[in-house]
Amino acid sequence: MDAWKLEWKPGMPNQPHVYWDSDVAKWIEAVGYSLAQNPDPELEKLADEVIQWMADAQQPDGYLNTHFTVVEPDKRWTNLRDLHELYCAGHLMEAAVAYYQGTGKRTLLDTLEKYADYIATVFGTGESQKRGIPGHEEIELALVRLAETTGKKKYLELASYFIEERGRQPHYFDIERKARGDESPYRLGGPDILPYAYNQSHLPVREQTTAEGHSVRACYLYAGMASVARETKDESLAKACKTLWNNITTKRMYVHGGIGSSRFGERFSFDYDLPNEDAYAETCAAISLVFFARNMLRLEKNADYANVLENTLYNGVISGISMDGKQFFYDNILASHPKYHKYSGQKSPQRQDWFGCACCPPNIARLIASISDYLYTQSDDTLWIHLFAEANANIRLKNTNVNLTSKTEYPWQETIDYTVNPDAEKSFTIAIRLPDWCDNPSILVNQEAIDLEKANKNGYAYITRTWKKGDKIHITFPMPVKRVYAHPSVRQNCGKVAIKRGPILYCLEECDNGKDLAALRLPPIAEFEVKASPESIGSVPMLIAPALRRDPSPWNGKLYSTNTPKYKSAQLVAIPYFLWANRGPGEMTIWINE
Amino acid sequence: MDAWKLEWKPGMPNQPHVYWDSDVAKWIEAVGYSLAQNPDPELEKLADEVIQWMADAQQPDGYLNTHFTVVEPDKRWTNLRDLHELYCAGHLMEAAVAYYQGTGKRTLLDTLEKYADYIATVFGTGESQKRGIPGHEEIELALVRLAETTGKKKYLELASYFIEERGRQPHYFDIERKARGDESPYRLGGPDILPYAYNQSHLPVREQTTAEGHSVRACYLYAGMASVARETKDESLAKACKTLWNNITTKRMYVHGGIGSSRFGERFSFDYDLPNEDAYAETCAAISLVFFARNMLRLEKNADYANVLENTLYNGVISGISMDGKQFFYDNILASHPKYHKYSGQKSPQRQDWFGCACCPPNIARLIASISDYLYTQSDDTLWIHLFAEANANIRLKNTNVNLTSKTEYPWQETIDYTVNPDAEKSFTIAIRLPDWCDNPSILVNQEAIDLEKANKNGYAYITRTWKKGDKIHITFPMPVKRVYAHPSVRQNCGKVAIKRGPILYCLEECDNGKDLAALRLPPIAEFEVKASPESIGSVPMLIAPALRRDPSPWNGKLYSTNTPKYKSAQLVAIPYFLWANRGPGEMTIWINE
Repeated sequence: MDAWKLEWKPGMPNQPHVYWDSDVAKWIEAVGYSLAQNPDPELEKLADEVIQWMADAQQPDGYLNTHFTVVEPDKRWTNLRDLHELYCAGHLMEAAVAYYQGTGKRTLLDTLEKYADYIATVFGTGESQKRGIPGHEEIELALVRLAETTGKKKYLELASYFIEERGRQPHYFDIERKARGDESPYRLGGPDILPYAYNQSHLPVREQTTAEGHSVRACYLYAGMASVARETKDESLAKACKTLWNNITTKRMYVHGGIGSSRFGERFSFDYDLPNEDAYAETCAAISLVFFARNMLRLEKNADYANVLENTLYNGVISGISMDGKQFFYDNILASHPKYHKYSGQKSPQRQDWFGCACCPPNIARLIASISDYLYTQSDDTLWIHLFAEANANIRLKNTNVNLTSKTEYPWQETIDYTVNPDAEKSFTIAIRLPDWCDNPSILVNQEAIDLEKANKNGYAYITRTWKKGDKIHITFPMPVKRVYAHPSVRQNCGKVAIKRGPILYCLEECDNGKDLAALRLPPIAEFEVKASPESIGSVPMLIAPALRRDPSPWNGKLYSTNTPKYKSAQLVAIPYFLWANRGPGEMTIWINE
Repeated sequence: MDAWKLEWKPGMPNQPHVYWDSDVAKWIEAVGYSLAQNPDPELEKLADEVIQWMADAQQPDGYLNTHFTVVEPDKRWTNLRDLHELYCAGHLMEAAVAYYQGTGKRTLLDTLEKYADYIATVFGTGESQKRGIPGHEEIELALVRLAETTGKKKYLELASYFIEERGRQPHYFDIERKARGDESPYRLGGPDILPYAYNQSHLPVREQTTAEGHSVRACYLYAGMASVARETKDESLAKACKTLWNNITTKRMYVHGGIGSSRFGERFSFDYDLPNEDAYAETCAAISLVFFARNMLRLEKNADYANVLENTLYNGVISGISMDGKQFFYDNILASHPKYHKYSGQKSPQRQDWFGCACCPPNIARLIASISDYLYTQSDDTLWIHLFAEANANIRLKNTNVNLTSKTEYPWQETIDYTVNPDAEKSFTIAIRLPDWCDNPSILVNQEAIDLEKANKNGYAYITRTWKKGDKIHITFPMPVKRVYAHPSVRQNCGKVAIKRGPILYCLEECDNGKDLAALRLPPIAEFEVKASPESIGSVPMLIAPALRRDPSPWNGKLYSTNTPKYKSAQLVAIPYFLWANRGPGEMTIWINE
């Protein structure tokens, strides 16, 4: 979300932006999820009040947008390309669904249904309708949620319309631009880049084969496409989603799961271009990839989606928030020198209290508050376990209530224990994801080993049996420290190695390793020791290995030398990447010279 | 020179800028040098005309600046900080000196003397004077040249004033800003950076210990300081120059001699921060370092200065111009991917016909046209040879004319042959630089070897003898291919190696090595073969070595893998860096994984 246009800082007067509603909406959505798990009358009262303001702000025709009601009422629907009107509508719909599901209260849901009904009259292929599409996607996935919640198919149809209309000629953004009297062609994205690729409207969606443009917009669109493909059983749309998924995850995704490497347009750049120190990798972009992954998972049970989802969640998403939950990263760089940002036009490499464009903090809030929605999906007879965490869930399988509880210290420990408690003995399937990072998983049911080679289908171990009260599943996912190498076409990482333990990506920080992290070299054979990290970063597992440090003495104070480099023995201390920058400024790197 | 403010491209109407005079001046200066070597009546006539226009544009009081005479006559001397008024004056002075020396014609010299006399009345510490300093330095070194040429000491004093006044409080740029009614404090350079460091006026020059700010401004200032220190025998000023020289050359200089790593302000950043693909390293900045080096050499005979001068000249300066002399680089990056600039806000990685801010092309022109001035310096009894090239020079030593001719294919071949022809037998000294890149130099005088260990003083072999007509000096500087390593604090280059042969820095290009240059690995023991490069880049020596290429097959189409990387054997072909980008777009890198 174009943060680079704003320079607001805490203490300065609020600088309202046209998409203010979306921030409020994300907060309401987070409150909805939170109340579903943890009732809090005070918080609920506050949210009810805000919702009432929102409902009161709705216009007689159903329109609801505070900016275009109060500030610029004459500009309604005049600039879908830049002014985020449909984007705000989408976020309000998601908020309405979450709040209704969390509290049973319909005020916001009714308001947004009315708004969606009105939008459906304005946009479409009918003669009197505008053939508009959002410049910032979001409403597509939101409309599918609204359709699911209300059972009203027309919202799905509207979502479908917004997706199908994208990239059609004559281009709506040209039409509305000229209608505004704006004769300047759209150039966002710099020369030599298809201008409308910035907002994924350069081509019809089925013809888009690479993930382009602003990465949050892109994955919100793709997530919406996956939802529509699922609901409409549209195979060509599903295929387009897979093509884009593959392009992202095999060519354009950081090892921490972040996407959108370029801060110039907060966008995808090109295959294998993944700069570390200059990474953008907006927190919201990682979140959008999580949404895309989840919607792909609902379309097709393939662990690839859940593997990426888990990796992104544990690394590139939660890196966006500080230990105390009060400070945020907008961009999630993979290497840092404390002075570099001063001379590179980047943001500070320390988390900030807030942003002028505060899209990321409430986005993290709604994701973390809804994390339980990511653990499982189900069909009538199968429960898929995608993520591993302590939880207590009640699921209806084959018309039977099944209570499932889990005990685990995952991702720090290797074991997860489930207790399955169906109301009655019943045959159904539990499908457990076998994480891609784990070479030797084992699953015992009531102490009996499952043959995982036989049980494995697309990365899930399918266990079908007659389950009865008290059945135990004991999972072990061994977590040896692993070295990760980037494809040789990633020019930034050739000769370097990243370290993971389980799903957790590690990094080096100056406070543990001294200055000049690039001078450290991890020998190919070095063994890692796992120790508890300092309390200040949660005493989580920290990795220690013998290493080498390039000895500066042969340079004799000069900058360049023809002497063969020498090394001194050293120690390398790695902490989980998402915990970096919680102990003051300093260098950091994920990729280590090997 | 703030190119990032302008977006002019060939074909668009000329966008005049306030420092237009400086471009014309650099052209006249280049013509002056050129006419000294190669008479050309047509060119001289053209220059004479331009000079007459300039002379005619001079105001009755001596003032001469076309912008502030024609466009904004009311703004004379109101914004020394930003509007380059004294900078233009300096360039005109250099042009006047060069044209006078090249042609004997005084029109421009007289004009500029009158202008300098006027400037000396306006600026100074006198009660009625402005205590102004230039925002873009240049006039300091120019005034010393004017003083040398005219013999008028007052120009040296004015140069000295401009240098001494720098960084004094109250700050003149604050005073003139307030006089303009501008209440906004100066912030160029971003937060956390001393604002006036951008133009080196944050501290008195003797208190400046690190090279800061806009790098061209910086080295023009330092070059001026070195000249004033020489002429005034000011040891504390000389010491300040050495401190700044050492900071640049041991902490802030690229291996190709470029300086000013950050394009945000075209400035120095911090010690050991030398990004490759994101380098700025403006051509003008490398030229300014050459000026600084030459003026240091005139202050102190230490080969360190000439070594840096040679390296910068052969690599980071001439990289700025294409094989055919018609296209130019503004920035001289050290690694390139043909798509990266589209997403990083950088300039094109191909040389351009011209620039909106066209400071670099005429700067290269005047440097190349005056290259003979860099070969030798002299005292009454000593001739120092700093650079090696074919030349025919007449020098006066101990009141005797000495003709010195040289034959060589340097820097491509290892030998240089001088013939010394004094008008009469005479004892004097010839001091020959022993290049820092050469381990085993040998010098024969009339076939007799010089004991270089004894003769060497500060990197020069001092040969004192009675020279007679026809004496021969035969030099051999063996040029094995050498590996160069950057200091381990240069985080961008740890684990990488650069290749040099003699003074020439090499690089890899995609057209010789295929895509994914970072996947190539130079084994520590690989031997290089020297072959002729393609005719299209001049058939100069090209270096070939057996290498390894990271095999992408273990990744199996994925982006990340935990499999141990494998290598295939490959060949590495390196060409002189300054010749890159003459054969179409493609990847390039100086630093190679080892």
